[in-house]
Amino acid sequence: MPVENVHLPHVISPAALLDHWQGHRRLTRRVIESFPEDRLFSYSIGLMRPFGAMALAMISIAEPMVRGIVTGNWDQSMSRDARPKQEVLRLWDENTGKINILWPQIPPERFQETMTAFGQYPGRVYELLFYALDNEIHHRGQGYVYLRALGIQPPAFYER
Amino acid sequence: MPVENVHLPHVISPAALLDHWQGHRRLTRRVIESFPEDRLFSYSIGLMRPFGAMALAMISIAEPMVRGIVTGNWDQSMSRDARPKQEVLRLWDENTGKINILWPQIPPERFQETMTAFGQYPGRVYELLFYALDNEIHHRGQGYVYLRALGIQPPAFYER
Repeated sequence: MPVENVHLPHVISPAALLDHWQGHRRLTRRVIESFPEDRLFSYSIGLMRPFGAMALAMISIAEPMVRGIVTGNWDQSMSRDARPKQEVLRLWDENTGKINILWPQIPPERFQETMTAFGQYPGRVYELLFYALDNEIHHRGQGYVYLRALGIQPPAFYER
Repeated sequence: MPVENVHLPHVISPAALLDHWQGHRRLTRRVIESFPEDRLFSYSIGLMRPFGAMALAMISIAEPMVRGIVTGNWDQSMSRDARPKQEVLRLWDENTGKINILWPQIPPERFQETMTAFGQYPGRVYELLFYALDNEIHHRGQGYVYLRALGIQPPAFYER
């Protein structure tokens, strides 16, 4: 891509988008924590996935997406088997740390470039990153319904 | 804000973020359409709001947010009363058209400035816009659960 593209008017800097995403990730972590241990991988509505499975899917997208964008290594081979809540949270935190290390290594011009994520999803890099974030918000919203249906008050959406 | 801020590395241009949001809005419109008329304002899970009420809340945030950012007029006084699905869709489309007209009027440097949305929510303009978008994704995800619980297949998340 031509270098002048990084000089066009912009909405958000890479550092600010990382802050924005990590704020969402803190909220999603609180939603995982809010589930009773025995409901995380067993409870669902309308034949959808339990929230634990959604959380593992998020983990299998988030750091692997950023890593792929930085390194070209799109490995996504983690197990999606049910596991104790503490293990999900440990994987979540591991992802968080890796994202913080990888993110500043995204070359500034790369956000406008086209890549094929995981060997099958082509798009501009900013679109791939927004997909990871938007998909997390989408499924976390579904987790809110599960929690409400279980009689549990979810964490406030606006607290990050 | 100093003008050089618009020359820092950036993730997404204003025009691309509008495209991204309008893609999400097309999906949300399909979710509204997917609800049976008699369930839009009556069905809910876990004492949450029906999806029709969530959709009206999105309408009361989306165009008013962009208008406020452009003009300083933060009026949000639309009625949130239940209404026929076609009327919700008409309001949705009206919002869409107004957003398309207002968005290019956001001065490029404003995205980094701080404003107080609706007289009570201070934040960087990009944060206020992401709030409107993220809140839409969050509640639309909840609408997916309602649809699944009603035995209705929601539109594909990745189609925009």
